Amino acid sequence: MRIAQVAPLYEAVPPEAYGGTERVIAVLCDGLAAAGHEVTLFGPENSLTDATLQASEQPLRERFSSDELVNLAPHLHLQMLAEIYRRADEFDVIHSHLDIWTLPFTRLRDTPTVLTMHGRLDLDFLRDLLPRYPSVPLVSISDDQRLAVADFDLTWAATVYNGLDLTAYQDVPHDSDGYLGFVGRITEEKGPLAAIEISRRTGVPLRMAAKVDPLDVDYYEDEVKPEMGPDVDFIGEIDEQEKPAFYAGARATLFPSDWPEPFGLVMIESLASGTPVIALRRGSVPEVIDDGVTGFICDDVDEMVKAAERIGEIDPDACRRHAQRFSAEEMCRGYVEVYESLVAGAHQSG
Amino acid sequence: MRIAQVAPLYEAVPPEAYGGTERVIAVLCDGLAAAGHEVTLFGPENSLTDATLQASEQPLRERFSSDELVNLAPHLHLQMLAEIYRRADEFDVIHSHLDIWTLPFTRLRDTPTVLTMHGRLDLDFLRDLLPRYPSVPLVSISDDQRLAVADFDLTWAATVYNGLDLTAYQDVPHDSDGYLGFVGRITEEKGPLAAIEISRRTGVPLRMAAKVDPLDVDYYEDEVKPEMGPDVDFIGEIDEQEKPAFYAGARATLFPSDWPEPFGLVMIESLASGTPVIALRRGSVPEVIDDGVTGFICDDVDEMVKAAERIGEIDPDACRRHAQRFSAEEMCRGYVEVYESLVAGAHQSG
Repeated sequence: MRIAQVAPLYEAVPPEAYGGTERVIAVLCDGLAAAGHEVTLFGPENSLTDATLQASEQPLRERFSSDELVNLAPHLHLQMLAEIYRRADEFDVIHSHLDIWTLPFTRLRDTPTVLTMHGRLDLDFLRDLLPRYPSVPLVSISDDQRLAVADFDLTWAATVYNGLDLTAYQDVPHDSDGYLGFVGRITEEKGPLAAIEISRRTGVPLRMAAKVDPLDVDYYEDEVKPEMGPDVDFIGEIDEQEKPAFYAGARATLFPSDWPEPFGLVMIESLASGTPVIALRRGSVPEVIDDGVTGFICDDVDEMVKAAERIGEIDPDACRRHAQRFSAEEMCRGYVEVYESLVAGAHQSG
Repeated sequence: MRIAQVAPLYEAVPPEAYGGTERVIAVLCDGLAAAGHEVTLFGPENSLTDATLQASEQPLRERFSSDELVNLAPHLHLQMLAEIYRRADEFDVIHSHLDIWTLPFTRLRDTPTVLTMHGRLDLDFLRDLLPRYPSVPLVSISDDQRLAVADFDLTWAATVYNGLDLTAYQDVPHDSDGYLGFVGRITEEKGPLAAIEISRRTGVPLRMAAKVDPLDVDYYEDEVKPEMGPDVDFIGEIDEQEKPAFYAGARATLFPSDWPEPFGLVMIESLASGTPVIALRRGSVPEVIDDGVTGFICDDVDEMVKAAERIGEIDPDACRRHAQRFSAEEMCRGYVEVYESLVAGAHQSG
C-alpha cells in the first residue's frame, strides 16, 4: 500500500529527547516499511526513518521563539498539508498525526484520510469542532480516550494502542528488590508528589528520571524539590539507551498520573522490563495494566502504598508477556487493518 | 462574473459597530452585485448584503470567549475555506479577506484566488510565510503597505484603495469654525494624547468620538483620561448615522496615528465631509492626503499645531472632490480589473 504518514514539525521523528508521539510515528513508519509498504513520511528534517522522508523544515521546537510557535507554526503545518493533499493521488491512504489541522483538507480530495488523536479530547474547542467533521475516520489510542466525546456521532475506525520496539527492554534482568521508579515530565498532573509520599511511607527509595520543562520550573522548584530527601534520587531526563536499565532496576514503576492519560508509554516500557506498574485508575490505565497480574490499579495514594507492599506477588514474566500486546508489530498490524478497511470503503463508494 | 467573497467570521458584514474591513467588504459586495456580477458572500450570519449570503456561523466576537477566539476560531475559518474550495468550480474568482489562512487552499484548486491584505505586513511571521507562496496574487490597500515585504518577490496584483459609500457625508455643510475632531479606537498608536496636546496648544476645543476596547481600558484610564479637561469632549463610540455630522462639524480632523497605517478610513470619511485632515507622515497618509490641498502632512506634533492654525487655507470642496477617489465605485472598478486579469491569466495557462 502507498501510505503517507504526516508528522508534526516540532520534533524530529524519532525525537532526540522527549516526544511520545514522534517515537510512535517513527516505529510505525519503520514497521510499515519493513512489511513491504511504500511509506512516505512528511515531517521535519533530521528525521531518521526507513520510509521515504519528505522533509520541509528543521524541527521547530529548537529554533522557534514562543511567538513563532504561536503565530507561524500552524501555517507551516497547513502549508505541508496542502502539499500532501495536492499530491493525494500518489497515496492509497493518508495517515495524519496532526489531528484537527488535517480536517479541512479531507473535504478536498477523495484519498481516504485517517487521523490518530494523540492528545486528550476533553477540551471544549475539540467538543465544538469534531462534530463538524462526523465522517472523518479517527483512531483513538485507548478506548477511554473516546469517552470525552462519546455524546457525538463520530467515525471511530479503531482503537490502536501505541507500540514501541521493546526488544531492548526484554534483555535486562528485573530487580525485584530495587527502588521505586518514576518516569515522566515533572508536572502536577503526573503526580510526582504522590510518588515521593509513597516512597516515604513504604520506606523504599525513589528514583525519578524526569524532565523539567521550562514551563514547569516553578512547580519543580516550589513544590517538588522541597519534598525531596536523601531517599529520593532525582536523575533528570534519561535517554533511550538508559531507559531499559532504569526500569529493570525498579521493583515497581509508580504511575500516579492524575488526569485522563490517553495512553502512557511509561507503562509499557516498564512492563517490557518485567517491572510491574502501580497506577491510579485514570484514563487508559485499566486498558494497559492487568490488575493483580501486571501491577495494581488503585483509587488513591493509600491504596498505592498498600500495593507497593504487595508488589512481590506480581510475576515479572507475566509483565513481559503482557507487554507484547504493545509491540511495534501489534500497532502496525492494527493500523494496516484500518488502512485496508478505508481503501476497501473508498473503492466501494468510488 | 461569478465571484466568491470570503469575509472573517468575527463581525457581521457590515459590522454593527467597529470593523473597518467588514465595512469595506459590505460595500464591495453590494457594488459588485449592483454592477451585475453574481456575488456569493461567505461570512457570518446577521450580514446584510446584496450578494447571496452563505452564512456558516453567528458572528464570533460577541459570543466567543477569549479561549475560543484563540483555539476554535481559526478552525472555523479553515472549515469555511474548505467548503468554498470544495465548491471552487462554481466561481470564476475567489476573493478572500482572510489573508494568510487562505494560502494553503490556493494550492488545491485552479480557480484563481486573490487575497486583500487588510493589516500591517511588518510582522516577523508574515515575512517568513508570504515568500512561501510567491505566486498567489495579493492586493495591497496602499502602496506603502507593501514596503515591509518589498525585499521579497511576491505577486502584487494591484493596490486597490478602500472605498466607502460616501454619499451621506457629502450632504452635511462643513463648519470651518468647528472643533478639532478625533475618530478611532483609544490606543497609544492612534495618538489620542497628541490630539489633546494639539487642541490645547491651538486653543480649539477637541471632540473625540472613540471606542475604548476592553484591551485598552487601562491605557484610557491611566494615560488619556487624566489629560482631558473641559476643552475635551469625549463622546465615546458613534454609529454610521452620527458620523457625517460629527466630521462636518469639525474644522479639521486630527490623524496623529503613529504607526504604519495600511489605509485609514477616518481620512476619507473626513474628506467626504469637506473636512481637511491633519496627519502624521506615516503609512498610507501621503497617498490619501494631498498635502496643502486636502489637509497637511506633518512630521511631528509641532508641525500639526502650525497646520491647525493654517487650516483656513484648505478648500472644503477640494476635500470633497478628492474623496471621490475613494468611492465605492472606484474600489469596485479596481477589483473588477484585478478579477478580469486573473481570469484572463487562468484561461491563458489552463
